[in-house]
Amino acid sequence: MSTTPLFAADPLDPLRVTGRLERLRVALATGETDEGAPDALLVTNPANIRWLTGFTGSAGVLLVTDEHALLTSDGRYRTQAAEQLVASGADHEVAVGIGGVSTQRELLAGAAADVEVLGLEASDVSWAAVRSWETVFAPRRLVPTHGLVEALRAVKDEGEVVRMERAAAIADAALAAVLPMLAAAGAGTDTVTESAFAAALDHAMRSLGAEDRAFETIVASGENSAKPHARPSERVLRPGDPVVVDFGATYDGYRSDMTRTFCLGGAPTGELATVFAVVAAAQAAGVASVAPGVAAGDVDSVCRDAIAEAGWAERFEHGTGHGVGLDIHEAPSVGAGSTAILQPGTVVTVEPGVYLPALGGVRIEDTLVVTATGSRPLTRFPKEVPV
Amino acid sequence: MSTTPLFAADPLDPLRVTGRLERLRVALATGETDEGAPDALLVTNPANIRWLTGFTGSAGVLLVTDEHALLTSDGRYRTQAAEQLVASGADHEVAVGIGGVSTQRELLAGAAADVEVLGLEASDVSWAAVRSWETVFAPRRLVPTHGLVEALRAVKDEGEVVRMERAAAIADAALAAVLPMLAAAGAGTDTVTESAFAAALDHAMRSLGAEDRAFETIVASGENSAKPHARPSERVLRPGDPVVVDFGATYDGYRSDMTRTFCLGGAPTGELATVFAVVAAAQAAGVASVAPGVAAGDVDSVCRDAIAEAGWAERFEHGTGHGVGLDIHEAPSVGAGSTAILQPGTVVTVEPGVYLPALGGVRIEDTLVVTATGSRPLTRFPKEVPV
Repeated sequence: MSTTPLFAADPLDPLRVTGRLERLRVALATGETDEGAPDALLVTNPANIRWLTGFTGSAGVLLVTDEHALLTSDGRYRTQAAEQLVASGADHEVAVGIGGVSTQRELLAGAAADVEVLGLEASDVSWAAVRSWETVFAPRRLVPTHGLVEALRAVKDEGEVVRMERAAAIADAALAAVLPMLAAAGAGTDTVTESAFAAALDHAMRSLGAEDRAFETIVASGENSAKPHARPSERVLRPGDPVVVDFGATYDGYRSDMTRTFCLGGAPTGELATVFAVVAAAQAAGVASVAPGVAAGDVDSVCRDAIAEAGWAERFEHGTGHGVGLDIHEAPSVGAGSTAILQPGTVVTVEPGVYLPALGGVRIEDTLVVTATGSRPLTRFPKEVPV
Repeated sequence: MSTTPLFAADPLDPLRVTGRLERLRVALATGETDEGAPDALLVTNPANIRWLTGFTGSAGVLLVTDEHALLTSDGRYRTQAAEQLVASGADHEVAVGIGGVSTQRELLAGAAADVEVLGLEASDVSWAAVRSWETVFAPRRLVPTHGLVEALRAVKDEGEVVRMERAAAIADAALAAVLPMLAAAGAGTDTVTESAFAAALDHAMRSLGAEDRAFETIVASGENSAKPHARPSERVLRPGDPVVVDFGATYDGYRSDMTRTFCLGGAPTGELATVFAVVAAAQAAGVASVAPGVAAGDVDSVCRDAIAEAGWAERFEHGTGHGVGLDIHEAPSVGAGSTAILQPGTVVTVEPGVYLPALGGVRIEDTLVVTATGSRPLTRFPKEVPV
């Protein structure tokens, strides 16, 4: 494919993390757990470490106390950690300790000398690791914390939104680049399998400047489209098939997420036409409801009600959406009962779907950033494209 | 790229899992933990669940007691779980329970009625999950277990080896398909970045029938090759560069892993030539040492000694290898002090490297299956290819 990377001529300055540690300390001080308030947090989730410090290594632990912060890693990351903390501005606040496992543990225990209650990220630390940390930090009390950094990450700053916008633009362009494959499959002039189309789309994203896909691309055709979590198979795309394409790009760590459903070889007919129309209307209504001050659960209700009205309540069997950022699924959840309040800078997906076994499924998804007055789509590929 | 999938005309029968649950029960009964022997295991590692039952869904939990086995999952996987358990032969031994979270928990608690001590896979269960399982299974005692299923998975059966052989053959063919890019970069006739070459290689594997890459492909050139864990960058490949290419394919769940280091535009010269020769000799010696009855740590020693003799002991800063299978890194570890004994059917990598800052690095890696008398390479791409 002879495509040129987008944005190659317009590199971004490194993201600055200034102020984030302070916000975490405020959250720690005000966040009571079942077992008492921790006065320090051991950050082990890699995306959280990246967000707080700029460090992107695959191995690292960050201890944040009232007064100090210490990032430890192994010798492979000595240079990278130093460079990335300077680039992010974290070098003023975060000390770096490099060494083998026992060295790192000694450094961490030393840095926790004044800590009484240490929080561990309960969803990101294995049972085996907890038992090991208990030894390292004895006699300090360890308590589980839930989503402290994740809650802060849910609201993106300008630099983060720009990266997600670029990821989404690359994904849009990639889909446009490989669309002729769908047209050929729809016209019956070429043999295209789900997996071949997924591979071409992934390759187009890389060629257009994505550092990677954002997650395993879904291409689900015909009866497979009725399975929301289908993986690309060797099924050949056929005229008349609905084809669900759910994919995204990663750009400088930040991800996009978009779903389009095509009908091969012409407009859908019969019940499938109704499914397309209902999902499109539900998605548009959901998108229109995204605004600051709105509870995420209300966006879910808007989509769910629209689909229920068409009689398919039972056929929309997943949540309406999720936050996106450094992780493809992050806070806030956009599902039934989600009480998270959308704020300017929150980035969420809206992706209702209807799945009728044997007939097929339709899902339409955009990634949106909440603005001061409503929302703005990051994913912009048109929703009704004949193929 | 106009490549045709390998093996498309020769599909494999589904893998059978017969006998695996019984072997796990034996391991459970004989495996004392610090806190007593569990009489049942809650399997939460997805690869372990797949190996024991054939189920490949992203959500599932398997309870294995003396008498029974119960797989629970949610409604998305109702059909898939039933079909896959029939295909694997596990349907005779494993009951399936489908439902929401609370339904699954009730089913699991019921199935554990006669259990006294329940093992949890300590490295695969988060602290948050442990606390939740404590509630579900109260008043049963929960104890951490370590690598029980992983130890069984280390020895592959014929069906598993065939899959890894195919993955390796696809990776070999993919590298051959994109080699002209390196030749062009070496001749200075085309501009090729690390990331463009990595993307082309990934795409070639998919085109040739891989369901996916086996892990994030490493392409590290020039000074980047001195970093064992470099990620593909926008650096342009230049004549004279060493280029480390570390990659693999996935075929029906099973992975391959191979590294080749090329020297662009002609044979390496000076110290770099010595590095190439030393690593090649160390790798060949390590491969020759792989045989049944050998401790994995001894394979590491063979490679390490050869490199130390050349004076670069400090420049070989990682383990010699690892097991490969459903996971890219699995048991046994092939590192200093590893006491795991290689057996016919064990699949390991041998991948020594020498990394000289500023000058560059060389790593050579094969994936090998231990045979009755020695070993057989699954990865077969030649090691000295001029580009």
